Parts: sequence; structure tokens; C-alpha cells
Amino acid sequence: MKTLISDKYIKDDKSKAIYDRAVDVITGGVSRNTIYRAPHPFYVASAKGSYITDIDGTERLDFANNMASLIHGHSHPTIINAVTEQLHNGSAYTMATEAEVRFAELLTSRSPGFEKVRFVNSGTEAVMTMIKASRAYTGKYKIAKAEGSYHGTYDFAEVSQTANPSNWGDIDKPNSVPVAQGTPLNVLNDVIIFPYNDIERTIKLLDDNADDIACVLIDPVPHRVGLFPATEEFVKALYNWTRKNNAILAFDEVVTYRVNYSGAQASYSVKPDLTALGKIIGGGFPIGALVGKSEIMQVLDPRQTFLKHPHSGTFSANPVSTTAGRIAMEMFNEQAVLDLNNLTNVARNQIEEVIKLADVPVCLTGAGSMFRMHFQENAPNTYRETYQNKETRDVINELLDFLFFEEDIVMINTMACMFATSLKQNDVDRLSDALLRGLRFMKPKIDRL
Amino acid sequence: MKTLISDKYIKDDKSKAIYDRAVDVITGGVSRNTIYRAPHPFYVASAKGSYITDIDGTERLDFANNMASLIHGHSHPTIINAVTEQLHNGSAYTMATEAEVRFAELLTSRSPGFEKVRFVNSGTEAVMTMIKASRAYTGKYKIAKAEGSYHGTYDFAEVSQTANPSNWGDIDKPNSVPVAQGTPLNVLNDVIIFPYNDIERTIKLLDDNADDIACVLIDPVPHRVGLFPATEEFVKALYNWTRKNNAILAFDEVVTYRVNYSGAQASYSVKPDLTALGKIIGGGFPIGALVGKSEIMQVLDPRQTFLKHPHSGTFSANPVSTTAGRIAMEMFNEQAVLDLNNLTNVARNQIEEVIKLADVPVCLTGAGSMFRMHFQENAPNTYRETYQNKETRDVINELLDFLFFEEDIVMINTMACMFATSLKQNDVDRLSDALLRGLRFMKPKIDRL
Repeated sequence: MKTLISDKYIKDDKSKAIYDRAVDVITGGVSRNTIYRAPHPFYVASAKGSYITDIDGTERLDFANNMASLIHGHSHPTIINAVTEQLHNGSAYTMATEAEVRFAELLTSRSPGFEKVRFVNSGTEAVMTMIKASRAYTGKYKIAKAEGSYHGTYDFAEVSQTANPSNWGDIDKPNSVPVAQGTPLNVLNDVIIFPYNDIERTIKLLDDNADDIACVLIDPVPHRVGLFPATEEFVKALYNWTRKNNAILAFDEVVTYRVNYSGAQASYSVKPDLTALGKIIGGGFPIGALVGKSEIMQVLDPRQTFLKHPHSGTFSANPVSTTAGRIAMEMFNEQAVLDLNNLTNVARNQIEEVIKLADVPVCLTGAGSMFRMHFQENAPNTYRETYQNKETRDVINELLDFLFFEEDIVMINTMACMFATSLKQNDVDRLSDALLRGLRFMKPKIDRL
Repeated sequence: MKTLISDKYIKDDKSKAIYDRAVDVITGGVSRNTIYRAPHPFYVASAKGSYITDIDGTERLDFANNMASLIHGHSHPTIINAVTEQLHNGSAYTMATEAEVRFAELLTSRSPGFEKVRFVNSGTEAVMTMIKASRAYTGKYKIAKAEGSYHGTYDFAEVSQTANPSNWGDIDKPNSVPVAQGTPLNVLNDVIIFPYNDIERTIKLLDDNADDIACVLIDPVPHRVGLFPATEEFVKALYNWTRKNNAILAFDEVVTYRVNYSGAQASYSVKPDLTALGKIIGGGFPIGALVGKSEIMQVLDPRQTFLKHPHSGTFSANPVSTTAGRIAMEMFNEQAVLDLNNLTNVARNQIEEVIKLADVPVCLTGAGSMFRMHFQENAPNTYRETYQNKETRDVINELLDFLFFEEDIVMINTMACMFATSLKQNDVDRLSDALLRGLRFMKPKIDRL
């Protein structure tokens, strides 16, 4: 993660001093690798709307929004007020709250397939519960997922997320590549890896394991695969295959629920059986949710005589996260979704223009309020096309440093932006101006890739 | 979960009306099975200190403290103030905060083996990360855990948590029993189940799998096994075995960290390599943490050239949870721990007296600020002795209903109490008086068990 440019920007500042303390007590000095940057991360003093101020007083414009999780930016007053009121009535009990019911009513009203909800604490927990519920319902145990797609840190869900040319194997039968060392071989064997949007190869791989597959798991606009949407034909093929083979069609919409009022699944003529949610539905607080068909979700029902999947969680459905989440989603109404997607489209058009002006082989992918830059002439259609070698990573890290230090702009470390309703046209102008300077600065290195 | 007594208490109240809405949108009407009670759960309006008021205005005295997670009771003003201040500065960013560093400094200062920390979002995530880190460090893949012990919902960690006489098998080689239907057979095969505190049988089972075991996982005072502490000899035997066999000694102290200033591990002459934390360290907000030896935790370090266990999490180490947690743990200082444990001992003595007065075959187990009642003459020493048949469960549920409806007292559904510093001597008196009436009321049924 060493970059070429950052050292010259690093002064003996307060962030460095805190990081020096951090490495003594936190492995690597960070609890989340995503916020690490060489030579050290920067520490936040305050954040409001789309602006974050670090403890040395530098204010930056934020297009990362805590990895896509803040749909209204930071510290929205309506959310703060509702959470503050809740705090005085408690934050967690061994009893129920109306907050979870009100939020579940809102979520189920937004998407036709969201018949029932169960709240958990993170996207990782939501995907894990979705996979376990799929197994409990079907009585089968394998899962199928796309090469390169990120679905949290449950081992079954993370297989092949970081596959690379040295280990990914034949595209006709991609290897199950562990992310964490020591992943049980049995876990790898129980996960079928398919190439995203490749109907023919995927169906063949599914057919080869038809008797064992509990669920086919996809993110409809998978960030790490390349942030391009699943095709209608691909989703329909998976839908039809799962109907024929007693398997669950499982969508991970932890990131992509923001794409439409009813989630990215609104774009398809067929709907998943189960969906995992997280990120924006917490209104800035830890949350995850499993939503989907009543009949399948029933495996979690404690009133059943034979409870197939007993499930609890100390902080699940806590009234702080469910209150903040409900308020955030009420404000993210159909008009707000449209306005945000429109602003994001304006940004994409401006950046396409900037790419032409800078005359660099760069392109964009995305959907709704998300986009990602790729350092190649043509938009990738597969994870293998998206995959970045070390030279490309170095260029990206240097450009990210340029934006962070010279332009005071925060982007996601894949060169992605996840927009929030707090952004305005002048913020978009600042982003495209900054990118123009950044791409021109980096042009010699980009051209050599 | 149908109980004998509850129906007569259920009026057409507001909680029933909310639950009727809840079942339409949430599977079983609850996101956590632990808060379900037949015929419906009750909904909280507000909670302060040790008192919870439901939306029909009934105020109850709380000995459950959100399943042991609230060490200072509800809505502590110092925590509310700190969290409110943090809210105005944001709740989550794609950058770091000093809040996590300050909290990590406090935690590492409390226990000699807590060299490094990584924060996650729940106890479930902490145990999962601990197991994955153990595998990454040792290069081995099996885990060993005790029959009956609860460690969250990661499938490897939950095996045999609910084992019963029909499936637990020979005590010399307990079966790996799935909790969720559809748990892969391979997961079951990769988990070795041993009988808690039984050195001879446990070591033999470990020896039989010595080449494959990445970690031996125990809760030092396992609630579901019977809430009795591990013996010094048992912990030492596991420690010595793990030293000899390149395995990690992993403690789940999500519940038991409250037992001593340095956790329940303070009671033993040897210390674990890794510890999972959660519950009270969130100060009422979602959190988990993995703590332990630097050398092992290094598998998570993003600065390593070869990163063995890449790990992130959108809400991990968020400044609300880490701020609330730090304040809660600062207030839970050595004197506060002693005072709380002393009050709990007073309660245990009073309840022992009550049991004699009521003349029922009931006994207590526990440690620190936790205890559990068992409906048997002698304290259980094993999970199989602790195991409750249906008749015993029915009696417990009826007594819990008596306490909840007649005495306005909340206990955990195993008949356990998890104390908080907000409790006073008069609360303890109310508990023991209520239990005297409850045990006398239930005596005919208890005697028939």
C-alpha cells in the first residue's frame, strides 16, 4: 500500500501523533483496513453534510460517505434529534421496541419482495444469516457466488473476492480462492465460483452442482467486480435456474439498495427470494437486515415447533440504529432518490468530459448514485477485465493521494464515489475540476499502463 | 415456548397491538428470539438505571440488562452526554478517529494479555474473527469447543450449543450437533466437541485431532453450560496442550469480561492467546472486539506485505460505540467492579436463604456479577447435568411469567441475573422477596420435577 506521492505531504502533525499511539494498541493502527493509507490514516475532528474536518483543521469534501453507508452525508440534524431523544429512553433492552416495527413497516412497503424483515448488526451478519437461512430452507449446503464480489467477512461469502491471475484458474471453472489463510478446504469446496454476467458458463457450473446448491448469491451492481449492473438476462437466467433446482436467489444489496427507491432489484423483471441490506439503512449507525419471502424467512420464526434456524443477537434491532435508519429512509423518498441519481449522472457526464480533456485512457462504470473510474480505454465487463495489476494500483494510489492532499477530496480506494443527498452542484464541479488536474498530473503514468 | 400462566395476564394492551403489526413485517414479530415471550413480547417506552417502563406504563426492575450488556443499567447520563456530543461531529467516516485509539489504550491497560485490539460490531463477529485469525496464524483449520456453550451465530462457533439427549452421543466423544438445519457436514466435521471442565476426556479428544486444531475455544464462565467457572486445572490443561500443539487458546469473554476488572481470565494462572469481547464494552451500543497477543493479531495487519487475514467492516470502531464503551469502562473501574460483585454476592446469599425458606430443590451457580438458578438440589458441574427437559422448561417459564407480571421483574430466560452498577440494596431485597413468593407459588410443580 506504499504510494509514490504521499511522503512529501506528511508533516509532523496531530494525525501522525495519534497514529503512533494507535499502532501500540491496535493491530496495524486501524480496525478497518479500508481506512488505512500509507504512511498513516488521518483522524476526524468533526463532519457535517459532505465535509469532514480532520484534527489538524483540514476540511475535505467527502465522496466516500463511510464506504457508501451515509446517504444524507454526516450529522444530519433530523437524525441527530431523533437519536438524541431515543438515547434518553435507553439504547438496548431485553424487551422489544416499536422502533423496529415502524422501520420494518417502512422497508417492507418499499419493495414488493420484502415480505418480512429480521434486523442484525452489519452487512456481514446479514449475508451470513441469508446463507444460513437458505441452507435451512432448502436442506442443501453449497452456495454459488461470483468471482471478485465482496459480501462481507463470513468465510463462505468471501471466497474468491480477491482472486488474482496467479490463482483464479480457468474461466470455465474458476478456482475457489481463499481470502483468509487457513480457510478450511471444506469451505472452499462448498462454494461454487462463477463469472459474473456470463450466463453460459455460470449455468453450466450451477448445473454441475445442482443437487447441492442452497443459494445463488449476487450483488446486482458489484463494486469489486467492476461496479457494472447485472444484465436482465443474467438475473433472469439465475432466477429460472433457482426455480428449477430448489435453490434460493439471494441478492446482496448492502451497497446497492441506494440505487433505486426499491433497491437495485427494481431494475429487473424478476425478484430475489432473499435480500441482505446494510449500510444506508442504518442512518449512520451499525445495522444489517435480512428481508424476503415470508415462507423462507419462517425458518427463523421462534414460534415454530421445529425452529430450523435459531437466531438472536444482543444488539440486533436496537432502537438507536432502527430509529436513525427509519428517519434516513423516510428522507430518502422517491423524489430524493431521483434527485440524487440525477446529480450523480451530471457528475458522471462532467467526468466523462474531463477524461476527454485530459486525454487519458480512463472510463466509468456505475449505477444510481455510485460510479467507479477504471484505468482502461473500455469499460470492463468482467472481474478479470477489472482486475488491477500492481502498476495500476500504484497509479490509483498516487491519484488518490493527489486528490486527498492537493484537492482535499475523499474518494473510495477503488476510485469510486458513493454520493449523498448533502452534495450540491458546486461540490460536483469541485470534484470534476480536481479530477481534471489529477488526471493531467498523472497522465504520463496513466499512458504507460 | 407456550407457558402455563401467561394467558391470564394478557390484556388487550398496546404491546399486543404493536406485536400484531410486528408479525406482519418481522418474522416471528422479533429480530431476536431471546426477547420473544408467549403470547407476545412487551414494548419499551423508556428505561433509566435499572428500571424499564413499557408502553402501557408498567415499570419493571431489570436484572437482564440487555442480556448482560449494560453494566451501568439504562441511559447513564455520562454516556448520553458523551454520545450526544459525538453525534454532532458525525457517527461514521471513511477515516479514523481518536475515539478508537483512546478506547484501545484503556482496554490494553486492563489485562496483561491484551496487547492489541481490533474492533468489530458484535460478539458474533468477534468470535468469528478470532477463529479466522487462529486459522490464519496456525495454518490449521479445526476448532475445539465445549458442548452446550454459546459463542454467537457463526456456524463453526455454534455447533452443539443446543445438543440434547437425543443427539449428543457418548460423553467420551460428543457428537457435533448442528444448531441451524442445513449446516454443512464439513463444518460439523471441522469442530471437535469436548465436555467442559472434564480434563481427561477433553485432552484425549484434542490429542486425537492434534494436527488439525487451530484453536481451543472456551468461555471461562459459560452461561448456557451452567454458568459455573472453568477450573484452574482445566484452563491450565488447555493452556499446556495448546503450547505443545501449535494451537491458540481462545477465550470468549463477551459475557464474562464483567467478572473482574481484567475479565474472568484474571482468575487463572495462565492467560489465553486471544480473547473475544462484546456486550458491556459497547456502553449500550453495538460492538465487539478481538484482543490478544501482538504476534498473533499481526495476521490482520494491513501493513504486512503478505496479509494473511484481510479484514474490514463498515461500522467497526465507529466513534459512537467506542466513545460510549470507553466511558462505560472508565466508570467500571476496580472499585466499581468490586462493589458490583459484592452486591451480587449479597443477592446470592439472600436468594440461597429464600430457597431454604421456600424449601425447594433449587440451587445457584455464577461468578462476579452473574448468577443463574437451577431447578435441582445440587449445582450442576456439566452441560449434561444443566440440561433442562421440557417439564423443567415449563416450570421456569411459569416462574418467569410470575416474576414479570406479578412482581414486575425482568430476568434472563435461563433464570439468570446479570447485575448492573445501577442496582441498589433495596432492588436486591425486592428481587429476593419476589423470588420467595415465586418459589412458594411454584413449589408443588418444582417438587414434582
